[in-house]
Amino acid sequence: MDKIIDITELALRDAHQSLIATRLGIEDMTGICEELDNAGYWSIECWGGATFDSCIRYLNEDPWERLRTFKKLMPKTKLQMLLRGQNLLGYRHYQDEVVERFVDKSAENGMDVYRIFDALNDLRNLETSIKAVKKAGKHAQGTISYTVSPIHTTALFVDQAKRLQDMGVDSICIKDMAALIKPQPAYDLVKGIKEACPGLRVQLHAHSTTGVTLVSLMKAIEAGVDCVDTAVSSMSLGPGHNPTESLIEMLEGTGYTTKVDLDRVLKAKLYFSKTLGRYKQFLSAVTGVETEIFKSQIPGGMLSNLESQLNQQGAGDRLTEVLEEVPRVRKDTGYVPLVTPSSQIVGTQAVLNVLMGKYKVLTGEFADIMLGYYGASPGDKNMEIVAKAQDHAKKEPITCRPADLLDPEWAKLRAEAEALEGNDGSDEDVLTYAMFPQVAAKFFATRAEGPMNLGKDPEEGAVDAATAAEHQGKITGPITYAVTLEGQKHKVVVAPYKK
Amino acid sequence: MDKIIDITELALRDAHQSLIATRLGIEDMTGICEELDNAGYWSIECWGGATFDSCIRYLNEDPWERLRTFKKLMPKTKLQMLLRGQNLLGYRHYQDEVVERFVDKSAENGMDVYRIFDALNDLRNLETSIKAVKKAGKHAQGTISYTVSPIHTTALFVDQAKRLQDMGVDSICIKDMAALIKPQPAYDLVKGIKEACPGLRVQLHAHSTTGVTLVSLMKAIEAGVDCVDTAVSSMSLGPGHNPTESLIEMLEGTGYTTKVDLDRVLKAKLYFSKTLGRYKQFLSAVTGVETEIFKSQIPGGMLSNLESQLNQQGAGDRLTEVLEEVPRVRKDTGYVPLVTPSSQIVGTQAVLNVLMGKYKVLTGEFADIMLGYYGASPGDKNMEIVAKAQDHAKKEPITCRPADLLDPEWAKLRAEAEALEGNDGSDEDVLTYAMFPQVAAKFFATRAEGPMNLGKDPEEGAVDAATAAEHQGKITGPITYAVTLEGQKHKVVVAPYKK
Repeated sequence: MDKIIDITELALRDAHQSLIATRLGIEDMTGICEELDNAGYWSIECWGGATFDSCIRYLNEDPWERLRTFKKLMPKTKLQMLLRGQNLLGYRHYQDEVVERFVDKSAENGMDVYRIFDALNDLRNLETSIKAVKKAGKHAQGTISYTVSPIHTTALFVDQAKRLQDMGVDSICIKDMAALIKPQPAYDLVKGIKEACPGLRVQLHAHSTTGVTLVSLMKAIEAGVDCVDTAVSSMSLGPGHNPTESLIEMLEGTGYTTKVDLDRVLKAKLYFSKTLGRYKQFLSAVTGVETEIFKSQIPGGMLSNLESQLNQQGAGDRLTEVLEEVPRVRKDTGYVPLVTPSSQIVGTQAVLNVLMGKYKVLTGEFADIMLGYYGASPGDKNMEIVAKAQDHAKKEPITCRPADLLDPEWAKLRAEAEALEGNDGSDEDVLTYAMFPQVAAKFFATRAEGPMNLGKDPEEGAVDAATAAEHQGKITGPITYAVTLEGQKHKVVVAPYKK
Repeated sequence: MDKIIDITELALRDAHQSLIATRLGIEDMTGICEELDNAGYWSIECWGGATFDSCIRYLNEDPWERLRTFKKLMPKTKLQMLLRGQNLLGYRHYQDEVVERFVDKSAENGMDVYRIFDALNDLRNLETSIKAVKKAGKHAQGTISYTVSPIHTTALFVDQAKRLQDMGVDSICIKDMAALIKPQPAYDLVKGIKEACPGLRVQLHAHSTTGVTLVSLMKAIEAGVDCVDTAVSSMSLGPGHNPTESLIEMLEGTGYTTKVDLDRVLKAKLYFSKTLGRYKQFLSAVTGVETEIFKSQIPGGMLSNLESQLNQQGAGDRLTEVLEEVPRVRKDTGYVPLVTPSSQIVGTQAVLNVLMGKYKVLTGEFADIMLGYYGASPGDKNMEIVAKAQDHAKKEPITCRPADLLDPEWAKLRAEAEALEGNDGSDEDVLTYAMFPQVAAKFFATRAEGPMNLGKDPEEGAVDAATAAEHQGKITGPITYAVTLEGQKHKVVVAPYKK
């Protein structure tokens, strides 16, 4: 009997977040939900910080309604979300009551599996949400934010897994957001966790950017991993993930197999292949393989941020210096993993160091990282820079769990949310407001207009010939045209050329 | 000590054949040859049937001069070519003297490694070229055209390797042109050959179309493979091959390593990334992963051929029937591998069977396959169809080596070549003529004009202002323009803008 390897399908969350800037609207997903629900996945990831943000920021779509829709259309398969621990779906620490209420409400609306991570791997930032998920009777998945540094040994990560098991998680996820996990380390880490944590389920999430991680999934499977993350092929590769179909096919004859129905996955491939054509304007520029990440440790998204910051300062020629500065800054922080928000914070500080002189200017966020306000760093911090941060921020370093410093805030959040136009008075609306206060205010006001789909039909640009015929006059000044180029409509102003 | 895994770089031959229809001109390769030569590859594949054909058909470039240029610019690394056995670089069987002269001349011009294959795996079709390569003191690589069928067992392929070893080859290549080789079969086959043929070097060539073959390369390495084929990442994936950088990186910590200098490969990545932008108009439509090949056994190139044949007959809706007919026709031939030219022959017959009735009409080529004129089939043929072929072609079936039926032809080829305008009287020109008689005639006549580069600079599309001024007519309705943007031609419709 072959061993069954479970699969979590990423098409509805991380895949479109990585490939088309999280812009996929609900009506471009509903048509395939039944096939996905019947395909035999262990879970379907469909919710997270960026999808929540994108729903209210770009799509005028209620993320809670999206969740309920998924639950209705996919009743057989566990729905899964990514949760930033004490940050929930936002960028700051929330007081425990907010965390508990968020977990309760999302569970009530249909969430089953919570993948809970912290950018610094400070497990105190996971405690409250893990407890809340267990209390709600749902699946709590404790996460290791995978990174590579002199202190991030297999032993360190295995110890983290053990501590997560002690905290009561139902499974462990190794989360490799930058496609850094190579086959042998993947094997060693999975083997190490399976040996140290008997009975604990282990799952591997890896992006495909460096081109090696399908091999890492194979080695993880050989080492005993229980579940792997993939995305339907037409929503895979580049900065995304490995293709579901390839994972299923590659196991033939290996003694491992999956329960996933390939025919249904191929239907989803076709569906998303057509869908993706409607979102060309959001397609990631990265399509091939980027092994440079292994050396620079700088993920693709962070690199484009650094470039744009430098260009804004007219210092585009200093990118190489910044790329060399990033690992030094990261070392000073005690080797924080580079993931949202730590990647932005470390990157911006590296830019400042190059442009203004080493630590002459500190951002508030960087000072907070040095002073412990995001949690404990994985390694030893540079105490000289900690002193500078203290001096700059006029704050004392802390060693406690950051959320312990917060006063109860639920009543205040509810009052502020209720004061907004269009707020419906629900706890869900309070939580939406708590996550993204400004964006939520705008969203509540326009919510009644309903979801806005940003996809564009390829033929949408075809102009009506009759209308055009009405305008057969002389061109007497600048004229605005709708120019359709490869199915994308552009507003183009044409006027006499002045040299 | 880590075991060294050798690499053959495909960028200069199969990569651009697979990705940009073999259109890469010599001046878009010369600039990176020094880096490639110093990178530490075991060999660099740079010549073959399609590149030879494309040189004289599209690029007005002498393929022999291309070979000499490569030899001059890459003196340290073995140059490698793909040879269609008794078919050399063409589509028919050549008499032995032509084969011997071709091998001599290519060796004299700089070729070092000959990868010799036959579409039917009839080893008699490899005999003469293997002997000629050995006589020229060069490396003869005997090839297994990998395919999947009820009769193509690991044992059958291992036996083929043994027979190739008996024929004196220096190494074996498992050639997986359709990306069909899965990890476990790759492991079993390499292991089987290494055990059955002690001391024999084994190399694995696999395309990446199905997305699983980097994993297959890893398993082949674990099974003892000596050398693998990859292509610089910016010339990889889709219908091409696995990225060189990913192969190098994935081996870290596994006990295997390569001698290839990653920094030089990354320079080549940047070089070809820019180059490829100039050939957008030839880019393959397939960019993602196509696991459907496992089921249909029909490689991407063959599928688009079938579609276009059906559309020409106004029968585009009968593709599914044809796809189901292909495996049946293939079975009747004794399970020939589907590779040039057998894929075209089997595909066309399947189309005829669907449109005209089962074997009501036979192509001459299909009759020849059934009657043994391409060589012996791997399995038992359907004797009923053999009888029909005999009846149709008015020829007897043969069991001998097809080339044994040929009369000496060198003198005749030389005389015909010399009669052509622009022929320089060299043996090389006779061979060029022998491969592609009609195209060669045209090429000889225009050769003096020198190579024609089909790449387009991104800014080349900018319209000349003076020319535009000549056309200052009135715009009277929606107009369709051909606009070249970033080197790619677009259909643009311009019409009045409607809000």
